[in-house]
Amino acid sequence: MTTNSPAVTVGVDFGTLSGRALVVAVEDGAELGSAVHDYTHGVVDGALPGSGRALPPDWALQVPQDWRDVLRFAVPRALAAAGVRPEQVVGVATDFTACTVLPALADGTPLSELPHFATRPHAYPKLWRHHAAQPEADDIVAAAEESGQDWLARYGGKISSEWQFAKALQVLREDPEVYAAAERWIEAADWIVWQLTGAENRNLCTAGYKGIHQDGTYPDADFLASLHPDFADFTKKLDFPLSQLGSPAGTLSAQAAALTGLREGTVVAVGNVDAHVTSAAARALEPGHMLAIMGTSTCHIMNSDVLAEVPGMCGVVRDGVVPGLWGYEAGQSGVGDILAWSVRTAAPYEYAAEARREGISVHELLTRKAASQPVGGHGLVALDWHSGNRSVLVDHHLSGLIVGLTLDTRPEDIYRALVEATAFGTRTIIEAFERSGVPVNEFTAAGGLLKNAFLMQTYSDVLNRPINVLASEQGPALGAAIHAAVAAGAHPDIRTASAAMGRIERAAYVPDAARAAAYDGLYAEYRTLHDHFGRGGNDVMHRLRSLRTARTA
Amino acid sequence: MTTNSPAVTVGVDFGTLSGRALVVAVEDGAELGSAVHDYTHGVVDGALPGSGRALPPDWALQVPQDWRDVLRFAVPRALAAAGVRPEQVVGVATDFTACTVLPALADGTPLSELPHFATRPHAYPKLWRHHAAQPEADDIVAAAEESGQDWLARYGGKISSEWQFAKALQVLREDPEVYAAAERWIEAADWIVWQLTGAENRNLCTAGYKGIHQDGTYPDADFLASLHPDFADFTKKLDFPLSQLGSPAGTLSAQAAALTGLREGTVVAVGNVDAHVTSAAARALEPGHMLAIMGTSTCHIMNSDVLAEVPGMCGVVRDGVVPGLWGYEAGQSGVGDILAWSVRTAAPYEYAAEARREGISVHELLTRKAASQPVGGHGLVALDWHSGNRSVLVDHHLSGLIVGLTLDTRPEDIYRALVEATAFGTRTIIEAFERSGVPVNEFTAAGGLLKNAFLMQTYSDVLNRPINVLASEQGPALGAAIHAAVAAGAHPDIRTASAAMGRIERAAYVPDAARAAAYDGLYAEYRTLHDHFGRGGNDVMHRLRSLRTARTA
Repeated sequence: MTTNSPAVTVGVDFGTLSGRALVVAVEDGAELGSAVHDYTHGVVDGALPGSGRALPPDWALQVPQDWRDVLRFAVPRALAAAGVRPEQVVGVATDFTACTVLPALADGTPLSELPHFATRPHAYPKLWRHHAAQPEADDIVAAAEESGQDWLARYGGKISSEWQFAKALQVLREDPEVYAAAERWIEAADWIVWQLTGAENRNLCTAGYKGIHQDGTYPDADFLASLHPDFADFTKKLDFPLSQLGSPAGTLSAQAAALTGLREGTVVAVGNVDAHVTSAAARALEPGHMLAIMGTSTCHIMNSDVLAEVPGMCGVVRDGVVPGLWGYEAGQSGVGDILAWSVRTAAPYEYAAEARREGISVHELLTRKAASQPVGGHGLVALDWHSGNRSVLVDHHLSGLIVGLTLDTRPEDIYRALVEATAFGTRTIIEAFERSGVPVNEFTAAGGLLKNAFLMQTYSDVLNRPINVLASEQGPALGAAIHAAVAAGAHPDIRTASAAMGRIERAAYVPDAARAAAYDGLYAEYRTLHDHFGRGGNDVMHRLRSLRTARTA
Repeated sequence: MTTNSPAVTVGVDFGTLSGRALVVAVEDGAELGSAVHDYTHGVVDGALPGSGRALPPDWALQVPQDWRDVLRFAVPRALAAAGVRPEQVVGVATDFTACTVLPALADGTPLSELPHFATRPHAYPKLWRHHAAQPEADDIVAAAEESGQDWLARYGGKISSEWQFAKALQVLREDPEVYAAAERWIEAADWIVWQLTGAENRNLCTAGYKGIHQDGTYPDADFLASLHPDFADFTKKLDFPLSQLGSPAGTLSAQAAALTGLREGTVVAVGNVDAHVTSAAARALEPGHMLAIMGTSTCHIMNSDVLAEVPGMCGVVRDGVVPGLWGYEAGQSGVGDILAWSVRTAAPYEYAAEARREGISVHELLTRKAASQPVGGHGLVALDWHSGNRSVLVDHHLSGLIVGLTLDTRPEDIYRALVEATAFGTRTIIEAFERSGVPVNEFTAAGGLLKNAFLMQTYSDVLNRPINVLASEQGPALGAAIHAAVAAGAHPDIRTASAAMGRIERAAYVPDAARAAAYDGLYAEYRTLHDHFGRGGNDVMHRLRSLRTARTA
């Protein structure tokens, strides 16, 4: 290979609504070309494709062919955009939303692609934000508490309804035939690798964070039988040797080569999660360096050499982000989507007209109107729980609250209060880590919300810390490309590859001392409300939600 | 007088933004004609007229000439509209917002009309909703508690910042020269009568509800001196024999006759308050019959033969509504204005466009979208405190709250939750009366919100009572006209005149049993939040307001 045809890798990022392929130079991480493919079916939460069968509330499914189409359309287009030849590509890697999980046959065929299951909702992949398995999650937690399962503390004391076990138990309870037909219960992160290599492979990361795999094992049969007699041998659908991140899963099959335009035999890395893989892109792999991927929701990823039980974290997994460290995950269920709610609910006619006149979005208009206010000038405090609370309360049945409304409260006041509430939510998570003995030394942000400078500055003020930012708009795909480089042997390990190929702008935002001091007071108000409504002082949010579900079902 | 030229009276209602004159047949209350005059200066809360001097937050003033202009323009136009001759008019009566109060010379000249005081804000009448005397109100309450003043319990334990003493003490503290120059401190309700008859006259109603006049006396000099040495003889500015409602204050002066087009010598009734006088219009004078005048705010008026200390009521005054009974007043600071806030804050572009297409108001659109929901379907509970809470908490520094927000919460959900919150506020007041041994047997509504049938039905469901409605769109002016008929001797007393001339539609709304039962649950949630945030469980609203005031001052 000459300098005119440098070695590249391809990172393919599977998001909630689309997939993106990115071609990256192995030497320095230069982004040479990319392409996006929107899923034909997007998020299936209204009716099942074809059948028109309506889905219950809280369901969210996807269609596997949409994912294959990303390989088929986005990868060749990205290669073309980058102007690279297939023989330059030394490796390919993927990352996926998680826990997005599906039932499949032993050969990897999704059950939803079998004609006799095509009209059965439970045969389809369940997207990460499928929240209909809350009763199952509650039962899993209760049973784990009762039988004293060691692993529970590794998940902050809660198993999420989003994860593999709750979703599988829902299938078993509601459609045992689909459950029985599922020879494999597999993360989409691993299923897509299977599509590339032609052989099953499973990664340590999703098994640990989403599959309750700890200290080399899954929950035992006795525990599972206590949930449902037929659930005792559930882990047979999962069992498979787990691969370290950054290692090769195999090589591209002839069929996948034909699909993608890459060469048969190209190294394929093991599967990974969109959030976790971004840590490599942001050079945020050192112990105590927290990465926040801020979009519709926010995911926090941090490595540490300390193992601790952090209340309300999503999970801690040995080797979960890079081999040799404990990888922690925490999260906020709603961030950008709460601001989008504010725009579609509390932005009146005149605001929309003004934004149109000025050629800016309503988000930008509200941000501009809100940005010049003094801290506390709007007189509001909000709780950022419009879609529940992931960390530190792990309760998807909580809801949003705004207090301090007056006849003078304007839309920009509400917008700003919601921005601040999400920053308070992040501070709550950081403090939970630090109080548990897991120091947070550095904070780096990535994701779509980076484009809102006011929001980022507010986070810096509320956290009273400098904020680094990921200096790439393609964080997950870049992270995947870094993993591909490691799997291909172009770099010795993920940390070395990250240093060479990742992109970080340090201290892009620094706190203002006066605003930081003022925010301490508002944060104290947030915490009082947080604990009152989130820890049983008043369970009104749960009661209102039950009533709403009962009345509108 | 022949049947072709029946005896009539003229009622003149002085509202917050305009005044209205109504010509009414004495025999049966038929409304023969009316006219409205908008105040030129409206509510003065931005800058002082002429001088451009900016007013501090929470100030609200008016201009006396605006009130005279109602006599000058609206009365003759109403006579013309009714087609009646001045000699048919046997009496005229007025009603006014209260406590709207002004400093005047001994001859009735408002200080604001003296050239050397025209640029002094404290020389102007303070409108009922001037809320800048809260520190003075707090001091009055504290001093009254400390010295064990008997009268405090007659006001539910609180003296409002809206009333005569707090407003006067603010003048004394902030502009002692204006205070000293004020030979009279007089309700606009009495001042306007003075303009008609040419002689000072004072009514029992405003003296009792707004002037701390109880058991024949005002607070004593020792108490007043404890507030400020120069306040000791404040009541000299008030002292005057108090007249019973419905009695004649005098007759029309030549000057007032020239102004109004009425005949000199026409009987003029004593002054009255817009809310209280409406009880006569609605035939809501019997003990236990509560009248709610529902507009931007709501005022509750009820007679009783029982004297009790109802926590958080605005006041109880002997003969305060009709001679011979205890008249109770309670209120909600914000009702219609909270719904207006919802329309201007949480009704997006598409809603405004849809309302425009359908030729209806955004209020009507939101109501229509909200009306078909099942109780609890929106998953929300709100506190109706956007402009504080008058009864039962008597705390203007409280603020609004909404809990239960999700990404699915729509503008009509918020609108409906706010409608419900105001109904819960009314229920809280009724329950406070009944728990204190003052039964509420019947409930009648009047005011601008009557036009929203969904809102009225919601009140009926939440209160689980039938609701009568005042069957006139001119409640206060009709009530004044009834008082004019009594003062003129056309009817022997207010109750008889009310029976002949008033208009009520009984059980216009009746509760739905299923909805009423469902609302019991939501009301319990409201009460829990009400007591937590309103009675010291979490004083966050006070702290947020202080911060907002400090930051935006």
